[in-house]
Amino acid sequence: MASTDYAFLKGHGTENDFVLLPELDEALLTPERVRALCDRRAGIGGDGVLRVARRDERWFMDYRNSDGSVSEMCGNGIRLFARYLVDAGLAQSPIEVDTRDGVKTLTVDGELITADMGAPKLLGTSTVAVGERSWEARHVDMGNPHAVAFVDSLDDAGPLHDEPSYDAGVYPGGVNVEFVVRRGDRHVAMRVHERGSGETRSCGTGACAVMVAAAADEREPGVDLTYRVDVPGGTLHVTWTADDRVLLTGPAVIVARGTTAL
Amino acid sequence: MASTDYAFLKGHGTENDFVLLPELDEALLTPERVRALCDRRAGIGGDGVLRVARRDERWFMDYRNSDGSVSEMCGNGIRLFARYLVDAGLAQSPIEVDTRDGVKTLTVDGELITADMGAPKLLGTSTVAVGERSWEARHVDMGNPHAVAFVDSLDDAGPLHDEPSYDAGVYPGGVNVEFVVRRGDRHVAMRVHERGSGETRSCGTGACAVMVAAAADEREPGVDLTYRVDVPGGTLHVTWTADDRVLLTGPAVIVARGTTAL
Repeated sequence: MASTDYAFLKGHGTENDFVLLPELDEALLTPERVRALCDRRAGIGGDGVLRVARRDERWFMDYRNSDGSVSEMCGNGIRLFARYLVDAGLAQSPIEVDTRDGVKTLTVDGELITADMGAPKLLGTSTVAVGERSWEARHVDMGNPHAVAFVDSLDDAGPLHDEPSYDAGVYPGGVNVEFVVRRGDRHVAMRVHERGSGETRSCGTGACAVMVAAAADEREPGVDLTYRVDVPGGTLHVTWTADDRVLLTGPAVIVARGTTAL
Repeated sequence: MASTDYAFLKGHGTENDFVLLPELDEALLTPERVRALCDRRAGIGGDGVLRVARRDERWFMDYRNSDGSVSEMCGNGIRLFARYLVDAGLAQSPIEVDTRDGVKTLTVDGELITADMGAPKLLGTSTVAVGERSWEARHVDMGNPHAVAFVDSLDDAGPLHDEPSYDAGVYPGGVNVEFVVRRGDRHVAMRVHERGSGETRSCGTGACAVMVAAAADEREPGVDLTYRVDVPGGTLHVTWTADDRVLLTGPAVIVARGTTAL
């Protein structure tokens, strides 16, 4: 490859996968380059790109969706970001990571990494639809917007090749859409269509939004509440703390590292 | 990563993509490891794995499908294999590469790499079907078996999520199924469902089989015949020579290199 080679790592959290760029200048991370890196056949492949940067004496996660657009936050991405920092000896748990949605705290406990996702905003309801079917969906804001629809079966939404339709008045910048079923006591399972990325195997903020929508009626003052959230790519645990923070816990692993000229 | 890290490269020929392993021992390339490497979310991602080996004083391409099974030959894979050998300074054009389908000759001309795929076998017809639709398909053997169906539109076969059905009496070991339309004089376009890999963006032996089925009635003694074959991932050219060899020409590029512990 040419002298323009730069370093990358590939990894995933519950199969929500990312290309991590530890040294690329921001000016070189064009939308075209993001799309080329995330292309699963002609590139390396990923649901998004995590550029490692510094801002105000903290690590800054510059997150991009696979279509090249900028995004505020990514719950699985920031857990992989912390895994990289710890493995590379660049930080020790707990780690403060700056994002476009503010500073987040990450804790690393062996294979499990927990991201403090901050306070949820539980908002109103609107309608989401796939083809001829439609559902009422709860609006949960986790720094990015989610529409959470409880369904009878995860198959109800079909193959999700296209973006579900939603109320553009409620979600002018687009929305991540989650379909959820209850599996048992404090145990749900979900699928997700991510804004800008299509259906993915997992979505961290989506798992948090789903837990908040599912647990809202059950919450008691002064008590932490933890749910198991099954996603297609694995299992996450989400805790809604007594002081109104949402903690996302699960594995995050680096599977390859090298150089590319994409 | 652990001390079990080993080298890989990722590249593609017309978006038929592969993980290339330049140094891994055969004993370590289990079907489980092939599936882990080819997993597009939890692994590196690819339509197959190319292990670089030596046999009888030649380079030997040990090709595996993404499901872990062994395959005889791969026309885009062997062109990427030659790209690696030339870029790494391990061989000069023309290159003889041994495969489970015998020794193949590769020539490199700048960005284009031509694989001599040997003599085709043009055999009988049988029926292939997707859902309720069925077509007559020509059996072409390029070292591996193909069923070539001419269709009115490439959309006719639908999304191809499942393997087309075929006559197991004709193809006891399975078959690669191609759907083809004529685009103009010596110009066709195709889609392919590859045995063991699902629908792919390109298939080298498939492009050759399609050209042979399309050109069979047009062939004249002593004349080379060249077709353009459009695949979803780009453009290939296939020449059927006067002495009954099929030459597959197109680009092949390495896009990343590094180490993995998968």
